[in-house]
Amino acid sequence: MSTTHRIEVDLGERSYPIVIGRGLLGGNFDIANYVQGDDCLVVSNDTVAPLYLERLRANLTGRDVASISLPDGESFKTLATMQMVLDELVRGGANRDTTIVALGGGVVGDIAGFAAACYMRGVSFIQVPTTLLAQVDSSVGGKTGVNHEQGKNLIGAFHQPRLVLIDTDTLDTLDERELRAGLAEVIKYGAICDPAFFAWLEENIQALLGKDPDALAHAIRRSCELKAEVVADDERETGRRAILNFGHTFGHAIERCQGYGEWLHGEAVAAGMLMAAELSGIDELERLRNLVAAAGLPVEPPPISPADWLAAMGMDKKIQRKKLRFVLLEKLGEAVTTSDYDEARLQRLLGSPA
Amino acid sequence: MSTTHRIEVDLGERSYPIVIGRGLLGGNFDIANYVQGDDCLVVSNDTVAPLYLERLRANLTGRDVASISLPDGESFKTLATMQMVLDELVRGGANRDTTIVALGGGVVGDIAGFAAACYMRGVSFIQVPTTLLAQVDSSVGGKTGVNHEQGKNLIGAFHQPRLVLIDTDTLDTLDERELRAGLAEVIKYGAICDPAFFAWLEENIQALLGKDPDALAHAIRRSCELKAEVVADDERETGRRAILNFGHTFGHAIERCQGYGEWLHGEAVAAGMLMAAELSGIDELERLRNLVAAAGLPVEPPPISPADWLAAMGMDKKIQRKKLRFVLLEKLGEAVTTSDYDEARLQRLLGSPA
Repeated sequence: MSTTHRIEVDLGERSYPIVIGRGLLGGNFDIANYVQGDDCLVVSNDTVAPLYLERLRANLTGRDVASISLPDGESFKTLATMQMVLDELVRGGANRDTTIVALGGGVVGDIAGFAAACYMRGVSFIQVPTTLLAQVDSSVGGKTGVNHEQGKNLIGAFHQPRLVLIDTDTLDTLDERELRAGLAEVIKYGAICDPAFFAWLEENIQALLGKDPDALAHAIRRSCELKAEVVADDERETGRRAILNFGHTFGHAIERCQGYGEWLHGEAVAAGMLMAAELSGIDELERLRNLVAAAGLPVEPPPISPADWLAAMGMDKKIQRKKLRFVLLEKLGEAVTTSDYDEARLQRLLGSPA
Repeated sequence: MSTTHRIEVDLGERSYPIVIGRGLLGGNFDIANYVQGDDCLVVSNDTVAPLYLERLRANLTGRDVASISLPDGESFKTLATMQMVLDELVRGGANRDTTIVALGGGVVGDIAGFAAACYMRGVSFIQVPTTLLAQVDSSVGGKTGVNHEQGKNLIGAFHQPRLVLIDTDTLDTLDERELRAGLAEVIKYGAICDPAFFAWLEENIQALLGKDPDALAHAIRRSCELKAEVVADDERETGRRAILNFGHTFGHAIERCQGYGEWLHGEAVAAGMLMAAELSGIDELERLRNLVAAAGLPVEPPPISPADWLAAMGMDKKIQRKKLRFVLLEKLGEAVTTSDYDEARLQRLLGSPA
């Protein structure tokens, strides 16, 4: 039951382990081994810090540990919040040997990682993701950044952590809506590159929603393995890594049109995956829809006008030379990135008159 | 006379050329070859744009060229100014194929390069340095960033340009004080790694101050060769590259205590090099002092209290584990990075009572 799994993200001199298990913050893993200098700054938020900061601190004895708690929520994922972290580093006299530890969900990890990328042109950082979404997706792979008011993650850096520490006990306190949002990214991995895992999810979705520890541990482990493999292949997303954005072109547009934070990222991705699957014209659309629905995730986007859709997607990072590119499914378990899609079907999906 | 020199900065897949010559902006070089996508954003400032922006534009026919002019001066090298560039990129719908072209001195290059590093986690950029200081130093090597009010270049990224284009004609309009400031970095190269070049500078300092084109071309070329070699050796400054910071620990402290922009960077480095040479205890101190003086650069720091010195240096990036490290000279033409220095001599240099 309390087995610890270790997955290596193979990136040459930037390689690092993902360690998954129970009680890791409580002493089952020596984090301090990954803190190279004498001091570290723990970046957390007002929701997570009261729950887990002291447990983490107890694991960093002998180090000079400072902490900062950011306001919680996607709407705070801005350059201004990132500057709060930089100011705290400067105030504490942080140097090039300082390690930043991100304790929280995807927003905390993205901001803290970007601050680590920029402070003195790069210091070490450790991801301690405490939401399912961060554990299976955002903490792995080195994408860091903040939102611009005109688009998600428009400002950022690739900066790999030295360690991703996933203590699955932290999911005990995760609320149900956040849990479901995380499952959207888990389902994504099955849909884009592992049909057997997709079938396993169909079998085990109720156990996952019920926070069954073994089911969660398996889902997290398999998701991290798949992501680690894709990232090792294409760290900077010049090719294959783009398949991880399945559902995200539509999903980012939903988030942008609704205002960040109104829909959770995973919810927007869920509806976005179904739109992308429909645009793909695959036979197994209903299987994906049923799994998304079983996970309690939205199967339809919110009402957005065709003009708003297009404007919101016009700023999407996946555009190359002004032509829209989508991640589509050849079939369930196999994704491609392409600009070759059915234009009429896209118009219908966006609600344009035929 | 109008020979074009080409120096390769050898960094594997991030390699790029430095092209040095006359009339390059006027059509002697096809910049557009280095613009990968359809559009680019030229980042310049209110001093340089009126002089050279149109000449550069004429060289970018067939591309969609936008431009932004930043306020001129070190005091504007901030995250807020960088955000102006990001906002302009977003406003223009820039995508991952957009190229940023930095046209100006070191401040423009550092801000534009940092914006290029961060926009969509990294887009291409080209350096077109128009001051001697930027041509011989800041445009080469991929250091980008902005100042924090508590320290210089505390926020930034390593992001290599695809091309450094040095049109020496742009020095015609450079004012004398800026020219001298650039010579400080030129003298630095001789002092840290090329005694023969140092001797050449002693011979040719008047020709350089008189803007003799051949002398300037040689000084720029040799400086870029030396910098390219050091950077190729140690791109991310984990070792040898630190010698390029000779004079900069003291120099940054001077800039910080005086307020950025009061002393030019090169002026602060000049006084800082003499302090570092004095701390080194080398025999050739007088040769360095004479050359700095002949270049019309300050040989003494401004009045700064011992406490202010220490505080200002306490935030310097070259500190490791709370111990000061300096770049010192073993002899003229040979530098080392060390924490092994004469503490009493340092105290005297900073004006502390013995």
